Amino acid sequence: MPRYKLTLEYDGTDFVGWQRQTNGLSVQQVVEEAITAYCGQACRLHVAGRTDAGVHALGQVAHFDGVKDDPPDTVRDAVNFHAKPHAVAILAAEIVPGEEAEAPFHARFSATSRSYVYRILNRRAPAVLDRGRVWWTPKPLDARAMDRAAKVLLGKHDFTTFRAAECQADSPIRTLDRLDVSRAGEEILIHAHARSFLHHQVRNMVGSLALVGLGKWGAKDLEQALAAKNRAAGGPTAPAAGLYLERVGYGV
Amino acid sequence: MPRYKLTLEYDGTDFVGWQRQTNGLSVQQVVEEAITAYCGQACRLHVAGRTDAGVHALGQVAHFDGVKDDPPDTVRDAVNFHAKPHAVAILAAEIVPGEEAEAPFHARFSATSRSYVYRILNRRAPAVLDRGRVWWTPKPLDARAMDRAAKVLLGKHDFTTFRAAECQADSPIRTLDRLDVSRAGEEILIHAHARSFLHHQVRNMVGSLALVGLGKWGAKDLEQALAAKNRAAGGPTAPAAGLYLERVGYGV
Repeated sequence: MPRYKLTLEYDGTDFVGWQRQTNGLSVQQVVEEAITAYCGQACRLHVAGRTDAGVHALGQVAHFDGVKDDPPDTVRDAVNFHAKPHAVAILAAEIVPGEEAEAPFHARFSATSRSYVYRILNRRAPAVLDRGRVWWTPKPLDARAMDRAAKVLLGKHDFTTFRAAECQADSPIRTLDRLDVSRAGEEILIHAHARSFLHHQVRNMVGSLALVGLGKWGAKDLEQALAAKNRAAGGPTAPAAGLYLERVGYGV
Repeated sequence: MPRYKLTLEYDGTDFVGWQRQTNGLSVQQVVEEAITAYCGQACRLHVAGRTDAGVHALGQVAHFDGVKDDPPDTVRDAVNFHAKPHAVAILAAEIVPGEEAEAPFHARFSATSRSYVYRILNRRAPAVLDRGRVWWTPKPLDARAMDRAAKVLLGKHDFTTFRAAECQADSPIRTLDRLDVSRAGEEILIHAHARSFLHHQVRNMVGSLALVGLGKWGAKDLEQALAAKNRAAGGPTAPAAGLYLERVGYGV
Protein backbone atom coordinates (compact mmCIF):
# COMPACT_ATOMS: atom_id res chain seq x y z
CA MET A 1 0.00 0.00 0.00
CA PRO A 2 1.35 3.45 -0.82
CA ARG A 3 2.93 5.88 1.60
CA TYR A 4 1.45 9.35 1.19
CA LYS A 5 3.25 12.63 1.75
CA LEU A 6 0.81 15.38 2.75
CA THR A 7 1.46 19.12 2.55
CA LEU A 8 -0.74 20.94 5.05
CA GLU A 9 -1.97 24.46 5.73
CA TYR A 10 -3.42 25.29 9.13
CA ASP A 11 -4.47 28.19 11.28
CA GLY A 12 -2.91 27.46 14.65
CA THR A 13 -5.17 29.84 16.60
CA ASP A 14 -7.65 27.30 17.95
CA PHE A 15 -5.27 24.34 18.27
CA VAL A 16 -3.09 23.30 21.21
CA GLY A 17 -0.33 22.81 18.62
CA TRP A 18 0.56 19.98 16.28
CA GLN A 19 0.94 17.24 18.87
CA ARG A 20 -1.93 15.45 20.60
CA GLN A 21 -2.60 16.76 24.11
CA THR A 22 -5.15 15.95 26.75
CA ASN A 23 -6.11 19.61 27.22
CA GLY A 24 -7.48 20.48 23.79
CA LEU A 25 -7.67 19.81 20.10
CA SER A 26 -4.44 19.32 18.16
CA VAL A 27 -3.81 19.45 14.42
CA GLN A 28 -2.52 15.87 14.61
CA GLN A 29 -5.79 14.64 16.13
CA VAL A 30 -7.94 16.37 13.49
CA VAL A 31 -5.92 15.04 10.57
CA GLU A 32 -5.47 11.52 11.99
CA GLU A 33 -9.21 11.29 12.64
CA ALA A 34 -9.98 12.56 9.13
CA ILE A 35 -7.65 9.93 7.65
CA THR A 36 -9.26 7.25 9.82
CA ALA A 37 -12.73 8.37 8.67
CA TYR A 38 -11.55 8.12 5.07
CA CYS A 39 -9.74 4.79 5.19
CA GLY A 40 -11.75 3.05 7.90
CA GLN A 41 -8.90 2.14 10.19
CA ALA A 42 -6.67 3.86 12.73
CA CYS A 43 -3.62 5.47 11.24
CA ARG A 44 -0.52 7.21 12.49
CA LEU A 45 0.79 10.45 11.01
CA HIS A 46 4.47 11.39 11.13
CA VAL A 47 5.22 15.10 10.91
CA ALA A 48 8.24 17.12 9.76
CA GLY A 49 8.15 19.51 12.70
CA ARG A 50 5.80 19.87 15.65
CA THR A 51 4.49 23.41 15.92
CA ASP A 52 3.40 25.07 19.17
CA ALA A 53 -0.08 26.31 20.06
CA GLY A 54 -1.01 29.32 17.94
CA VAL A 55 1.71 28.74 15.32
CA HIS A 56 0.45 28.46 11.73
CA ALA A 57 1.57 26.42 8.75
CA LEU A 58 1.59 27.26 5.07
CA GLY A 59 3.45 24.09 4.13
CA GLN A 60 3.78 21.60 6.99
CA VAL A 61 4.61 18.07 5.81
CA ALA A 62 3.44 14.74 7.24
CA HIS A 63 3.25 11.17 5.97
CA PHE A 64 1.17 8.06 6.59
CA ASP A 65 0.89 4.58 5.16
CA GLY A 66 -2.35 4.08 3.26
CA VAL A 67 -4.58 1.03 3.52
CA LYS A 68 -6.18 1.59 0.11
CA ASP A 69 -4.52 2.09 -3.24
CA ASP A 70 -6.13 5.48 -4.00
CA PRO A 71 -4.65 8.16 -6.26
CA PRO A 72 -3.16 11.04 -4.22
CA ASP A 73 -5.81 13.57 -5.31
CA THR A 74 -8.52 11.28 -3.96
CA VAL A 75 -6.70 11.11 -0.63
CA ARG A 76 -6.33 14.91 -0.52
CA ASP A 77 -10.03 15.53 -1.26
CA ALA A 78 -11.28 12.79 1.10
CA VAL A 79 -9.16 13.94 4.05
CA ASN A 80 -10.19 17.56 3.45
CA PHE A 81 -13.82 16.47 3.40
CA HIS A 82 -13.49 14.71 6.76
CA ALA A 83 -11.35 17.48 8.34
CA LYS A 84 -14.16 20.03 7.96
CA PRO A 85 -14.93 22.32 9.71
CA HIS A 86 -11.51 22.54 11.36
CA ALA A 87 -8.98 25.11 10.23
CA VAL A 88 -6.66 22.64 8.52
CA ALA A 89 -6.46 21.51 4.90
CA ILE A 90 -4.33 19.16 2.82
CA LEU A 91 -2.89 21.29 0.01
CA ALA A 92 -1.33 18.34 -1.79
CA ALA A 93 -0.87 14.59 -1.46
CA GLU A 94 1.86 12.61 -3.20
CA ILE A 95 2.92 8.98 -3.24
CA VAL A 96 6.45 8.56 -1.82
CA PRO A 97 8.68 5.52 -1.23
CA GLY A 98 7.47 3.43 1.74
CA GLU A 99 9.18 0.97 4.13
CA GLU A 100 9.72 -1.57 1.35
CA ALA A 101 11.90 0.90 -0.56
CA GLU A 102 15.66 1.20 -0.32
CA ALA A 103 15.31 4.81 0.87
CA PRO A 104 11.90 5.20 2.48
CA PHE A 105 10.50 8.71 2.75
CA HIS A 106 10.03 10.00 6.29
CA ALA A 107 8.46 13.43 6.84
CA ARG A 108 10.80 14.19 9.72
CA PHE A 109 13.99 12.22 9.08
CA SER A 110 14.14 12.85 5.33
CA ALA A 111 13.69 16.62 5.72
CA THR A 112 16.78 18.62 4.80
CA SER A 113 15.49 22.15 5.51
CA ARG A 114 12.79 24.15 7.23
CA SER A 115 11.66 27.65 6.26
CA TYR A 116 9.70 29.89 8.58
CA VAL A 117 8.24 33.32 8.07
CA TYR A 118 7.37 35.62 10.96
CA ARG A 119 4.92 38.50 10.43
CA ILE A 120 4.95 41.69 12.54
CA LEU A 121 2.18 44.24 12.02
CA ASN A 122 3.93 47.55 12.71
CA ARG A 123 1.35 50.33 12.91
CA ARG A 124 -0.56 52.31 15.55
CA ALA A 125 -3.92 50.63 14.92
CA PRO A 126 -4.32 47.11 16.28
CA ALA A 127 -4.59 44.06 14.01
CA VAL A 128 -8.10 43.42 12.71
CA LEU A 129 -8.25 41.35 9.53
CA ASP A 130 -4.97 39.68 10.52
CA ARG A 131 -5.70 39.31 14.22
CA GLY A 132 -4.17 36.09 15.55
CA ARG A 133 -1.99 35.92 12.44
CA VAL A 134 0.57 38.64 13.21
CA TRP A 135 2.45 40.14 16.14
CA TRP A 136 1.08 43.64 16.57
CA THR A 137 3.87 46.05 17.50
CA PRO A 138 2.68 49.67 17.54
CA LYS A 139 6.07 51.36 18.05
CA PRO A 140 8.01 51.94 14.81
CA LEU A 141 10.60 49.27 14.03
CA ASP A 142 13.66 49.89 11.87
CA ALA A 143 13.57 46.91 9.51
CA ARG A 144 16.94 47.77 7.93
CA ALA A 145 18.69 47.80 11.28
CA MET A 146 17.02 44.48 12.11
CA ASP A 147 18.14 42.99 8.80
CA ARG A 148 21.74 44.12 9.27
CA ALA A 149 21.88 42.80 12.85
CA ALA A 150 20.27 39.48 11.82
CA LYS A 151 23.40 38.62 9.86
CA VAL A 152 25.42 38.06 13.06
CA LEU A 153 23.28 34.98 13.69
CA LEU A 154 24.03 33.37 10.31
CA GLY A 155 26.17 30.26 10.17
CA LYS A 156 26.97 27.52 12.68
CA HIS A 157 26.56 28.52 16.33
CA ASP A 158 25.58 27.35 19.77
CA PHE A 159 22.07 28.84 19.92
CA THR A 160 21.48 28.21 23.64
CA THR A 161 20.52 31.89 24.05
CA PHE A 162 17.58 31.38 21.68
CA ARG A 163 16.53 27.94 22.90
CA ALA A 164 13.48 27.21 25.06
CA ALA A 165 14.18 25.66 28.46
CA GLU A 166 12.02 22.66 27.50
CA CYS A 167 13.86 22.05 24.20
CA GLN A 168 14.55 18.34 23.78
CA ALA A 169 17.25 18.54 21.11
CA ASP A 170 20.52 16.74 21.96
CA SER A 171 22.66 19.66 20.86
CA PRO A 172 22.21 23.44 20.87
CA ILE A 173 24.38 23.72 17.74
CA ARG A 174 22.51 24.71 14.59
CA THR A 175 23.46 26.21 11.25
CA LEU A 176 21.32 29.16 10.24
CA ASP A 177 21.33 29.61 6.46
CA ARG A 178 19.05 32.61 6.11
CA LEU A 179 17.66 35.32 8.39
CA ASP A 180 16.27 38.25 6.41
CA VAL A 181 14.14 41.13 7.63
CA SER A 182 12.18 43.26 5.18
CA ARG A 183 9.33 45.75 5.30
CA ALA A 184 6.22 45.45 3.10
CA GLY A 185 4.01 48.43 3.89
CA GLU A 186 2.82 48.12 7.49
CA GLU A 187 4.30 44.65 7.84
CA ILE A 188 7.74 43.46 8.76
CA LEU A 189 8.55 40.00 7.46
CA ILE A 190 11.31 37.84 8.87
CA HIS A 191 12.40 34.83 6.84
CA ALA A 192 14.44 32.11 8.53
CA HIS A 193 15.88 29.03 6.86
CA ALA A 194 17.94 26.18 8.34
CA ARG A 195 18.28 22.41 8.25
CA SER A 196 16.49 22.41 11.61
CA PHE A 197 15.71 24.75 14.48
CA LEU A 198 15.72 24.48 18.26
CA HIS A 199 12.44 24.79 20.17
CA HIS A 200 11.31 28.48 20.12
CA GLN A 201 14.45 29.44 18.21
CA VAL A 202 12.71 31.55 15.57
CA ARG A 203 10.43 33.28 18.08
CA ASN A 204 13.36 33.99 20.40
CA MET A 205 15.49 35.38 17.56
CA VAL A 206 12.52 37.58 16.49
CA GLY A 207 12.07 38.85 20.05
CA SER A 208 15.72 39.95 20.12
CA LEU A 209 15.54 41.45 16.63
CA ALA A 210 12.55 43.51 17.76
CA LEU A 211 14.81 45.08 20.42
CA VAL A 212 17.15 46.05 17.59
CA GLY A 213 14.21 47.44 15.59
CA LEU A 214 13.19 49.61 18.53
CA GLY A 215 16.75 50.95 18.85
CA LYS A 216 17.24 49.38 22.28
CA TRP A 217 19.85 46.96 20.96
CA GLY A 218 22.53 47.20 18.30
CA ALA A 219 24.04 44.37 16.26
CA LYS A 220 26.78 44.19 18.90
CA ASP A 221 24.22 43.42 21.63
CA LEU A 222 22.80 40.62 19.52
CA GLU A 223 26.30 39.23 18.98
CA GLN A 224 27.00 39.35 22.72
CA ALA A 225 23.67 37.69 23.50
CA LEU A 226 24.55 34.82 21.13
CA ALA A 227 28.02 34.51 22.66
CA ALA A 228 26.57 34.37 26.19
CA LYS A 229 24.97 30.95 25.44
CA ASN A 230 22.39 31.78 28.06
CA ARG A 231 18.65 32.21 27.48
CA ALA A 232 18.60 35.04 30.04
CA ALA A 233 20.88 37.08 27.77
CA GLY A 234 18.34 36.99 24.90
CA GLY A 235 15.30 39.16 24.24
CA PRO A 236 11.72 38.09 24.93
CA THR A 237 9.97 35.28 23.04
CA ALA A 238 7.87 36.74 20.22
CA PRO A 239 4.20 35.59 20.25
CA ALA A 240 3.21 32.38 18.48
CA ALA A 241 0.56 34.17 16.36
CA GLY A 242 3.11 35.71 13.98
CA LEU A 243 4.93 32.47 13.14
CA TYR A 244 4.32 30.33 10.02
CA LEU A 245 6.05 27.11 9.05
CA GLU A 246 6.37 28.02 5.39
CA ARG A 247 8.09 25.07 3.75
CA VAL A 248 9.89 21.82 4.48
CA GLY A 249 12.58 20.83 1.98
CA TYR A 250 13.64 17.31 0.97
CA GLY A 251 16.60 16.13 -1.05
CA VAL A 252 19.57 18.23 -1.99
CA MET B 1 -15.37 71.60 17.93
CA PRO B 2 -13.61 69.69 15.16
CA ARG B 3 -15.19 67.25 12.73
CA TYR B 4 -13.12 64.07 12.47
CA LYS B 5 -12.77 61.89 9.41
CA LEU B 6 -12.03 58.29 10.38
CA THR B 7 -10.55 55.61 8.10
CA LEU B 8 -11.57 52.17 9.33
CA GLU B 9 -10.55 48.57 8.86
CA TYR B 10 -12.91 45.81 9.91
CA ASP B 11 -13.45 42.10 9.60
CA GLY B 12 -17.13 41.78 8.64
CA THR B 13 -17.42 38.11 9.65
CA ASP B 14 -19.03 38.58 13.05
CA PHE B 15 -21.01 41.73 12.29
CA VAL B 16 -24.54 42.09 10.89
CA GLY B 17 -23.06 44.73 8.58
CA TRP B 18 -22.29 48.41 8.99
CA GLN B 19 -25.73 49.59 9.99
CA ARG B 20 -27.30 49.13 13.41
CA GLN B 21 -29.77 46.24 13.53
CA THR B 22 -31.86 44.71 16.27
CA ASN B 23 -30.65 41.18 15.48
CA GLY B 24 -26.95 41.50 16.17
CA LEU B 25 -23.85 43.62 16.52
CA SER B 26 -23.05 46.15 13.80
CA VAL B 27 -19.81 47.97 13.06
CA GLN B 28 -21.66 51.25 13.53
CA GLN B 29 -22.74 50.30 17.05
CA VAL B 30 -19.23 49.25 18.10
CA VAL B 31 -17.60 52.42 16.80
CA GLU B 32 -20.33 54.78 18.05
CA GLU B 33 -20.14 53.21 21.50
CA ALA B 34 -16.34 53.48 21.49
CA ILE B 35 -16.56 57.17 20.55
CA THR B 36 -19.17 57.71 23.28
CA ALA B 37 -16.93 55.98 25.81
CA TYR B 38 -14.05 58.23 24.76
CA CYS B 39 -15.87 61.58 24.68
CA GLY B 40 -18.53 60.98 27.33
CA GLN B 41 -21.58 61.79 25.27
CA ALA B 42 -23.71 60.14 22.60
CA CYS B 43 -22.43 60.66 19.11
CA ARG B 44 -23.59 59.91 15.61
CA LEU B 45 -21.32 58.50 12.91
CA HIS B 46 -21.91 59.13 9.20
CA VAL B 47 -20.45 56.56 6.86
CA ALA B 48 -19.33 56.62 3.23
CA GLY B 49 -21.01 53.35 2.31
CA ARG B 50 -22.96 50.82 4.34
CA THR B 51 -21.53 47.35 3.93
CA ASP B 52 -23.53 44.10 4.25
CA ALA B 53 -23.05 41.36 6.83
CA GLY B 54 -19.77 39.53 6.22
CA VAL B 55 -18.28 42.24 3.98
CA HIS B 56 -14.91 43.59 5.09
CA ALA B 57 -13.29 47.00 4.92
CA LEU B 58 -9.68 48.00 4.42
CA GLY B 59 -10.49 51.69 4.14
CA GLN B 60 -14.09 52.54 5.07
CA VAL B 61 -14.60 56.22 5.88
CA ALA B 62 -16.91 57.80 8.47
CA HIS B 63 -17.09 61.15 10.22
CA PHE B 64 -18.39 62.57 13.50
CA ASP B 65 -18.39 65.91 15.27
CA GLY B 66 -16.15 65.88 18.32
CA VAL B 67 -17.04 67.37 21.69
CA LYS B 68 -13.41 67.81 22.75
CA ASP B 69 -10.61 69.56 20.91
CA ASP B 70 -8.26 66.58 20.81
CA PRO B 71 -5.54 66.01 18.21
CA PRO B 72 -6.59 63.37 15.64
CA ASP B 73 -4.02 60.79 16.81
CA THR B 74 -5.48 60.97 20.32
CA VAL B 75 -8.94 60.31 18.89
CA ARG B 76 -7.65 57.35 16.87
CA ASP B 77 -5.89 55.75 19.84
CA ALA B 78 -8.78 56.39 22.28
CA VAL B 79 -11.45 54.98 19.95
CA ASN B 80 -9.27 51.94 19.24
CA PHE B 81 -8.81 51.41 22.95
CA HIS B 82 -12.56 51.45 23.56
CA ALA B 83 -13.40 49.34 20.47
CA LYS B 84 -11.42 46.37 21.81
CA PRO B 85 -11.92 43.42 21.51
CA HIS B 86 -14.11 43.85 18.44
CA ALA B 87 -12.68 43.28 14.96
CA VAL B 88 -12.64 46.94 13.95
CA ALA B 89 -9.91 49.57 14.16
CA ILE B 90 -9.43 53.21 13.26
CA LEU B 91 -6.44 53.33 10.93
CA ALA B 92 -6.34 57.12 10.80
CA ALA B 93 -8.21 60.16 12.10
CA GLU B 94 -8.02 63.60 10.49
CA ILE B 95 -9.65 66.95 11.17
CA VAL B 96 -11.89 68.01 8.26
CA PRO B 97 -14.14 71.05 7.66
CA GLY B 98 -17.31 70.91 9.79
CA GLU B 99 -20.79 72.46 9.48
CA GLU B 100 -19.43 75.99 10.04
CA ALA B 101 -17.28 75.71 6.90
CA GLU B 102 -18.26 76.82 3.43
CA ALA B 103 -17.83 73.28 2.14
CA PRO B 104 -18.31 70.88 5.07
CA PHE B 105 -16.86 67.40 4.73
CA HIS B 106 -19.41 64.60 4.70
CA ALA B 107 -18.21 60.98 4.58
CA ARG B 108 -21.04 59.98 2.25
CA PHE B 109 -21.96 63.08 0.27
CA SER B 110 -18.41 64.34 -0.30
CA ALA B 111 -17.19 60.95 -1.57
CA THR B 112 -16.30 60.96 -5.26
CA SER B 113 -15.26 57.32 -5.68
CA ARG B 114 -15.39 53.87 -4.10
CA SER B 115 -12.92 51.07 -4.73
CA TYR B 116 -13.66 47.46 -3.90
CA VAL B 117 -11.54 44.37 -4.16
CA TYR B 118 -13.01 40.87 -4.32
CA ARG B 119 -10.86 37.84 -3.46
CA ILE B 120 -11.52 34.36 -4.84
CA LEU B 121 -9.41 31.45 -3.55
CA ASN B 122 -9.15 29.17 -6.56
CA ARG B 123 -7.64 25.84 -5.52
CA ARG B 124 -8.77 22.32 -4.63
CA ALA B 125 -8.09 22.65 -0.90
CA PRO B 126 -10.59 24.71 1.10
CA ALA B 127 -9.69 28.06 2.63
CA VAL B 128 -7.97 27.81 6.00
CA LEU B 129 -5.90 30.85 6.97
CA ASP B 130 -8.21 33.02 4.82
CA ARG B 131 -11.47 31.36 5.77
CA GLY B 132 -14.26 33.94 5.91
CA ARG B 133 -12.06 36.32 3.92
CA VAL B 134 -12.28 34.78 0.44
CA TRP B 135 -14.76 32.98 -1.78
CA TRP B 136 -13.44 29.46 -2.13
CA THR B 137 -13.99 28.18 -5.68
CA PRO B 138 -12.35 24.78 -6.24
CA LYS B 139 -12.94 24.51 -10.02
CA PRO B 140 -10.27 26.26 -12.13
CA LEU B 141 -11.21 29.77 -13.25
CA ASP B 142 -9.76 31.43 -16.35
CA ALA B 143 -8.78 34.86 -15.00
CA ARG B 144 -7.82 36.19 -18.44
CA ALA B 145 -11.22 35.34 -19.91
CA MET B 146 -12.86 36.99 -16.88
CA ASP B 147 -10.73 40.11 -17.32
CA ARG B 148 -11.55 40.40 -21.04
CA ALA B 149 -15.28 39.89 -20.44
CA ALA B 150 -15.29 42.40 -17.55
CA LYS B 151 -14.58 45.19 -20.02
CA VAL B 152 -18.12 44.99 -21.45
CA LEU B 153 -19.40 46.35 -18.13
CA LEU B 154 -17.16 49.44 -18.18
CA GLY B 155 -18.75 52.86 -18.69
CA LYS B 156 -22.24 54.23 -18.08
CA HIS B 157 -25.01 51.61 -18.05
CA ASP B 158 -28.31 50.64 -16.54
CA PHE B 159 -27.04 48.01 -14.06
CA THR B 160 -30.48 46.60 -13.14
CA THR B 161 -29.19 43.08 -13.92
CA PHE B 162 -26.60 43.42 -11.15
CA ARG B 163 -28.78 45.22 -8.61
CA ALA B 164 -30.28 43.64 -5.49
CA ALA B 165 -34.09 43.63 -5.30
CA GLU B 166 -33.89 45.62 -2.06
CA CYS B 167 -31.61 48.32 -3.54
CA GLN B 168 -32.84 51.76 -2.47
CA ALA B 169 -31.02 53.88 -5.07
CA ASP B 170 -33.21 56.18 -7.15
CA SER B 171 -31.60 55.19 -10.42
CA PRO B 172 -30.03 51.96 -11.71
CA ILE B 173 -27.63 54.00 -13.88
CA ARG B 174 -24.00 53.88 -12.78
CA THR B 175 -20.65 54.57 -14.41
CA LEU B 176 -18.11 51.81 -13.87
CA ASP B 177 -14.56 53.14 -14.22
CA ARG B 178 -12.55 50.01 -13.54
CA LEU B 179 -13.23 46.28 -13.45
CA ASP B 180 -10.00 44.27 -13.60
CA VAL B 181 -9.49 40.57 -12.97
CA SER B 182 -6.02 39.20 -12.26
CA ARG B 183 -4.50 36.05 -10.83
CA ALA B 184 -1.94 36.08 -8.01
CA GLY B 185 -0.96 32.47 -7.33
CA GLU B 186 -4.01 30.63 -6.02
CA GLU B 187 -6.02 33.83 -5.76
CA ILE B 188 -8.11 35.70 -8.27
CA LEU B 189 -8.46 39.40 -7.48
CA ILE B 190 -11.22 41.56 -8.92
CA HIS B 191 -10.80 45.32 -8.61
CA ALA B 192 -13.86 47.54 -9.13
CA HIS B 193 -13.89 51.34 -9.09
CA ALA B 194 -16.80 53.76 -9.58
CA ARG B 195 -18.25 56.95 -8.18
CA SER B 196 -20.84 54.75 -6.47
CA PHE B 197 -22.31 51.26 -6.74
CA LEU B 198 -25.79 49.78 -6.48
CA HIS B 199 -26.62 47.39 -3.65
CA HIS B 200 -24.88 44.02 -4.30
CA GLN B 201 -23.53 45.33 -7.61
CA VAL B 202 -19.95 44.15 -7.09
CA ARG B 203 -20.99 40.73 -5.74
CA ASN B 204 -23.46 40.27 -8.60
CA MET B 205 -20.88 41.24 -11.21
CA VAL B 206 -18.38 38.82 -9.62
CA GLY B 207 -20.98 36.01 -9.67
CA SER B 208 -21.44 36.51 -13.41
CA LEU B 209 -17.70 36.81 -14.04
CA ALA B 210 -17.23 33.47 -12.26
CA LEU B 211 -19.52 31.89 -14.90
CA VAL B 212 -17.15 33.31 -17.52
CA GLY B 213 -14.15 31.96 -15.59
CA LEU B 214 -15.71 28.47 -15.56
CA GLY B 215 -16.29 28.65 -19.33
CA LYS B 216 -20.08 28.54 -18.93
CA TRP B 217 -20.44 32.10 -20.22
CA GLY B 218 -18.59 34.14 -22.84
CA ALA B 219 -18.21 37.93 -22.94
CA LYS B 220 -21.27 37.95 -25.24
CA ASP B 221 -23.41 36.35 -22.51
CA LEU B 222 -22.28 39.00 -20.04
CA GLU B 223 -23.16 41.71 -22.57
CA GLN B 224 -26.62 40.22 -23.11
CA ALA B 225 -27.19 39.89 -19.36
CA LEU B 226 -26.38 43.60 -18.94
CA ALA B 227 -28.67 44.53 -21.83
CA ALA B 228 -31.55 42.49 -20.36
CA LYS B 229 -31.84 44.94 -17.42
CA ASN B 230 -33.24 42.08 -15.40
CA ARG B 231 -31.69 40.55 -12.28
CA ALA B 232 -32.86 37.10 -13.41
CA ALA B 233 -30.56 37.39 -16.44
CA GLY B 234 -27.47 37.76 -14.25
CA GLY B 235 -25.34 35.12 -12.54
CA PRO B 236 -25.53 34.29 -8.82
CA THR B 237 -24.52 36.71 -6.07
CA ALA B 238 -20.96 36.00 -4.94
CA PRO B 239 -20.59 35.48 -1.16
CA ALA B 240 -20.01 38.48 1.12
CA ALA B 241 -16.83 36.96 2.60
CA GLY B 242 -14.70 37.78 -0.47
CA LEU B 243 -15.62 41.47 -0.64
CA TYR B 244 -13.54 44.36 0.74
CA LEU B 245 -14.30 48.07 0.61
CA GLU B 246 -10.76 49.10 -0.21
CA ARG B 247 -10.84 52.89 -0.46
CA VAL B 248 -13.17 55.87 -0.57
CA GLY B 249 -11.95 58.83 -2.62
CA TYR B 250 -12.66 62.52 -1.99
CA GLY B 251 -11.98 65.55 -4.15
CA VAL B 252 -11.07 65.46 -7.79
